[in-house]
Amino acid sequence: MQSFMDQDYLLNNETARSLFHEHAAKLPICDFHCHIDASVLAANRNFRDLTEAWLGGDHYKWRAMRLAGVPERCITGDADPEEKFKAWAQILPDLIGNPLYPWTHLELQRYFGIAEPLTPASAPAIWKSVNEQLARPECTPVQLLKRMKVRILCTTDDPVSTLQDHARLAGQTGDLKVIPASRPDRFLRLLNPAYPQVIAELEAVSPDSAPIRSLDSLADALRQRADVFHRHGCRLSDHALDTMPQMPVSRTDANRLFQKRLAGQELLPDEAAQVQFAILTDLAAIYEDLGWTMQLHIGALRNTSRRYFDRLGPDTGFDAIADMPVARPLVQLLNACQEQNALPRTLLYSLNANDNMTLSTIGSTFARDGEPAWVTQGPAWWFHDQKDGMQLHLQQYSQTGVLANFVGMSTDSRSLLSYTRHEYFRRIFCNQLGLWVENGEYPRDMAALASLVERVCWKNAAGLFA
Amino acid sequence: MQSFMDQDYLLNNETARSLFHEHAAKLPICDFHCHIDASVLAANRNFRDLTEAWLGGDHYKWRAMRLAGVPERCITGDADPEEKFKAWAQILPDLIGNPLYPWTHLELQRYFGIAEPLTPASAPAIWKSVNEQLARPECTPVQLLKRMKVRILCTTDDPVSTLQDHARLAGQTGDLKVIPASRPDRFLRLLNPAYPQVIAELEAVSPDSAPIRSLDSLADALRQRADVFHRHGCRLSDHALDTMPQMPVSRTDANRLFQKRLAGQELLPDEAAQVQFAILTDLAAIYEDLGWTMQLHIGALRNTSRRYFDRLGPDTGFDAIADMPVARPLVQLLNACQEQNALPRTLLYSLNANDNMTLSTIGSTFARDGEPAWVTQGPAWWFHDQKDGMQLHLQQYSQTGVLANFVGMSTDSRSLLSYTRHEYFRRIFCNQLGLWVENGEYPRDMAALASLVERVCWKNAAGLFA
Amino acid sequence: MQSFMDQDYLLNNETARSLFHEHAAKLPICDFHCHIDASVLAANRNFRDLTEAWLGGDHYKWRAMRLAGVPERCITGDADPEEKFKAWAQILPDLIGNPLYPWTHLELQRYFGIAEPLTPASAPAIWKSVNEQLARPECTPVQLLKRMKVRILCTTDDPVSTLQDHARLAGQTGDLKVIPASRPDRFLRLLNPAYPQVIAELEAVSPDSAPIRSLDSLADALRQRADVFHRHGCRLSDHALDTMPQMPVSRTDANRLFQKRLAGQELLPDEAAQVQFAILTDLAAIYEDLGWTMQLHIGALRNTSRRYFDRLGPDTGFDAIADMPVARPLVQLLNACQEQNALPRTLLYSLNANDNMTLSTIGSTFARDGEPAWVTQGPAWWFHDQKDGMQLHLQQYSQTGVLANFVGMSTDSRSLLSYTRHEYFRRIFCNQLGLWVENGEYPRDMAALASLVERVCWKNAAGLFA
Repeated sequence: MQSFMDQDYLLNNETARSLFHEHAAKLPICDFHCHIDASVLAANRNFRDLTEAWLGGDHYKWRAMRLAGVPERCITGDADPEEKFKAWAQILPDLIGNPLYPWTHLELQRYFGIAEPLTPASAPAIWKSVNEQLARPECTPVQLLKRMKVRILCTTDDPVSTLQDHARLAGQTGDLKVIPASRPDRFLRLLNPAYPQVIAELEAVSPDSAPIRSLDSLADALRQRADVFHRHGCRLSDHALDTMPQMPVSRTDANRLFQKRLAGQELLPDEAAQVQFAILTDLAAIYEDLGWTMQLHIGALRNTSRRYFDRLGPDTGFDAIADMPVARPLVQLLNACQEQNALPRTLLYSLNANDNMTLSTIGSTFARDGEPAWVTQGPAWWFHDQKDGMQLHLQQYSQTGVLANFVGMSTDSRSLLSYTRHEYFRRIFCNQLGLWVENGEYPRDMAALASLVERVCWKNAAGLFA
Repeated sequence: MQSFMDQDYLLNNETARSLFHEHAAKLPICDFHCHIDASVLAANRNFRDLTEAWLGGDHYKWRAMRLAGVPERCITGDADPEEKFKAWAQILPDLIGNPLYPWTHLELQRYFGIAEPLTPASAPAIWKSVNEQLARPECTPVQLLKRMKVRILCTTDDPVSTLQDHARLAGQTGDLKVIPASRPDRFLRLLNPAYPQVIAELEAVSPDSAPIRSLDSLADALRQRADVFHRHGCRLSDHALDTMPQMPVSRTDANRLFQKRLAGQELLPDEAAQVQFAILTDLAAIYEDLGWTMQLHIGALRNTSRRYFDRLGPDTGFDAIADMPVARPLVQLLNACQEQNALPRTLLYSLNANDNMTLSTIGSTFARDGEPAWVTQGPAWWFHDQKDGMQLHLQQYSQTGVLANFVGMSTDSRSLLSYTRHEYFRRIFCNQLGLWVENGEYPRDMAALASLVERVCWKNAAGLFA
Repeated sequence: MQSFMDQDYLLNNETARSLFHEHAAKLPICDFHCHIDASVLAANRNFRDLTEAWLGGDHYKWRAMRLAGVPERCITGDADPEEKFKAWAQILPDLIGNPLYPWTHLELQRYFGIAEPLTPASAPAIWKSVNEQLARPECTPVQLLKRMKVRILCTTDDPVSTLQDHARLAGQTGDLKVIPASRPDRFLRLLNPAYPQVIAELEAVSPDSAPIRSLDSLADALRQRADVFHRHGCRLSDHALDTMPQMPVSRTDANRLFQKRLAGQELLPDEAAQVQFAILTDLAAIYEDLGWTMQLHIGALRNTSRRYFDRLGPDTGFDAIADMPVARPLVQLLNACQEQNALPRTLLYSLNANDNMTLSTIGSTFARDGEPAWVTQGPAWWFHDQKDGMQLHLQQYSQTGVLANFVGMSTDSRSLLSYTRHEYFRRIFCNQLGLWVENGEYPRDMAALASLVERVCWKNAAGLFA
């Protein structure tokens, strides 16, 4: 029996322990996809307390608390910080098997040196100790990241962003680079009642462009913004495909629908999907030209509960896993990009793990001659970003692909305390390598294995910014 | 190597063995969903022989026998009981990996004290021994249940049922309560050629209601029946969603379609799905008002073979697993109920385990403030109600939810001998807890773990009747 | 820790080792489904070198090389054989977890006595040693098969084939039988622009038939070809269902669409799917009459990249896993066959492993009285034909079926060196049996287990030719 989350946590064999402690643990972090707000880093203000750090914006914890029967008052409501923290501590022991359980304890261990499990009994002492530490200089947002050896961190930004926080941070954070990533989702959501205003916002920040009257002038304006982002170091974009885009009958047709929408008329979902397809291929061409990586996040079913959406807004714990077919529309999109010589390096994600092998096999059919893993899966996403989900993802990735080319872990998180998830991933990754070795499925060639660890845990991701 | 199905069967670690033997094994059983016929309990007649007890109505075994090449004569046909039993014993050793294998042996061990594997060689002695025991007073249907410590058992009943058998049983079975559950499927199957007569049946038993001429008067009649059921202790309903209901354009529209059907005209499948949606939300409002739990069993593809259906009827081993998308229609249904303040506590099941995480994440977005697990998954269903299926279900439930709130096991069975499946589930559950502990993923806090066992194996289910 | 791929490779328990070494390893091979070209066997020419043997037509390796960043020149291009081999050796260590890794080493071990892992460093010596061996008489195509104890091998042939290579081979290969299998896909692809010419090809080789003017005369012509195949020993057909056939409104309707297509007019996809349904049920009737087994390979998404298809053609590594619903159309097809008393023994495959339990449960509902496993799953297919995929497939097959009736392994391969995959499967199968036994889930009844091994690894498949 292994003791609770000790130094060999999740490392069940000798090869894994050696790979983790001698190699993986020493590598820096490239977090190429997260939702940290650059303004928080630019302000670099200490957290008031552990409730602000942990429960301020973490809809993972909010969902778990609601499920466990905690009143909303103690989640997003007006309860005081200590009461909220105690509500969290109260339900934590019930979260056996949920990734929030180990994440919580990894964070207590690595950021605050607390090895004891968080329970209702231990909560008061932990509340006191962590709050004291949070007030110290080594717990500013930037220092929290640097202590975890974060070297590259990509925020997620709207194309109209001025990136002023990134500009303020430039050169001020030592060996930590804070880089924007572009998420132009708003410009592809044709069903949004405010869509014409969204386009007007873009026009307003693109003074060099002609007025946006067509798909072509939209592409011009988006290109201008991409150039601005590129100068700030941006090398990735990100797209939420909550529904799948649909190949339009023709570009003329898509353009006509776009213009109809700009004129204030509504589109049917099928029509909107066709315009999305056209805009997405235009964006892909921009990314390909700039050498960016395109991320496609497929299959979230968002804001299911109208009542809670009206009360709390988006990203508050009311999203779920969709189950629509994705293979054919995805192939049509990637093929259309390739036909136009405009298929950028692409990372595919699905929120439905049933799609893992569909995505990996589709990706492997869109090669670029001489380039590794041109279209490939990104890390296990969201609900699958936990031990079993990561193991399955690694296994299916390797069964159908080249594991050495896997881009590794990103936190996809809003929380500054979530950087221990890279360690969590690395333990799981090293353990999987060790299992293969110790089961006689791969030679105990420690140099080859160390090279795998280095590429998957750092180099492949860092290489996106080369 | 562990010996065959001994006292530590499926308990592969010390923590699991301790949790099972010291806690789980001692708990009573609440079987909140099964298909036992109350009239069998009311009559309380001993089985004639093991063939009647095992092969009388168990379509799980029938299917396996057909697959193994046993002639229908020895399955549902006119072969004599001993020949049928021997046919079963003949193929059993070929069922390695099938849950029927351990179920058969758990039943032989716990009900009849027979530890030897059933094989063609051991069959004659087992036939003799079990048949002798079955004639004894401790083997009446009610005694079989009481020996397994069943305290609450929900039958599955049509809303028009007089519940006379439940009335006869009331107060006659000591600490065993036999309670009806309502399954109004017939009233939602608009495509049934006999639908107008089905409605007429309901009218006939609802003398206080106005004639059923509209969705509103249908809801009134169903409410009357629910009140009758409630007085008999009913706290759960059950619905088979073999296809997904579809949100109607408006209630007026749904009502018009309902009236068209009542008038004897046929509906298209899409139209029927809209009426189903409307009736289901009306029922949900009744359940919410009465404090009942609504069970939705999604995704069975029934009676695939026309030939066998004509010969043997439904529930004879000719059902399969469907693969339709469920996420969006399910969200629409739950959201519609919530919008009307009429979303009852709900248990979701899918016969396609690919839906597990879709269901669990959807469920977790329909919270009721301060209530644990308002909409949540029920136990692994039917084809997944076996070791691997249960393990996967427990893991995915805990990854995306709060395992402590899981409602635990129900047999969903027609067989009085199937109550050892609760033991089977408890072994698997304790083993999973132990695996987490012994792998260092959870502290060895035996009080917290014992509390988990008690809630999942008894209290959460019993609480549905509080 | 087990050493790398030694004699006990994948055999993690004593029962498994005993079952494999004493039983499975000694059994001959029936490869009832592969893509070896009979003309290669008839010519029986030695390979020029290991590149021809390994990389000549193996799109599994091509795909992996592309994914790893090998230039196309070294894959399907004009690089010289040694350069191609070295490119393969270069990337192999990166393929940890990919089945190509163990397959490569099993082939080096069993065909060429090389135990050393293939790495860039060991590549030159292996290149030399294997090339020397390939020139020897024991390495002709036929001898390679005989050394692996292949007794029955089914090629995959178009119905218009003259089968002249099979005729040449008849009686010339000792205890190895090379038998054709019929794959009439071309006659069901109504959307192919050349469809009328395809039908004309069939007419040309069916002199006894009336001209093909209707579905009935098409069935007559296909029956003639089936009779020819039957005389050459054929007992299986094979169908790629890349999309699902669709039940036509009536046969008259389907016939009218067929005639429209014969007349050179195009059909919509839905119309083509209806004609496919009709032709498939006609073929099923032929198979049933002849005692053949029908194989349905469902769910490949082929030739995703237009650019690479134009350059390299089909079957070059550009296929992926589809995700369409299959349950209802499959049930309609099987039911239609059964209703016409024309449902042959059928093997179901899906390229999407999410369908495993849907297929197994559907299959088990189409019984033939007294026959085991009349409609059942074939082996794990293509991307799932690896350790994890096979384990999952075996587990799900046994959970929902009768494992003893499983038809076992086929290579589905184009490569003469792939016959070690039967050993690979047998190790995995024996290991699974051993796991159940050593976990106390099945008695250690070695006679029953040996019988299971014999049936699944040889007898059930060989019985298809009885």
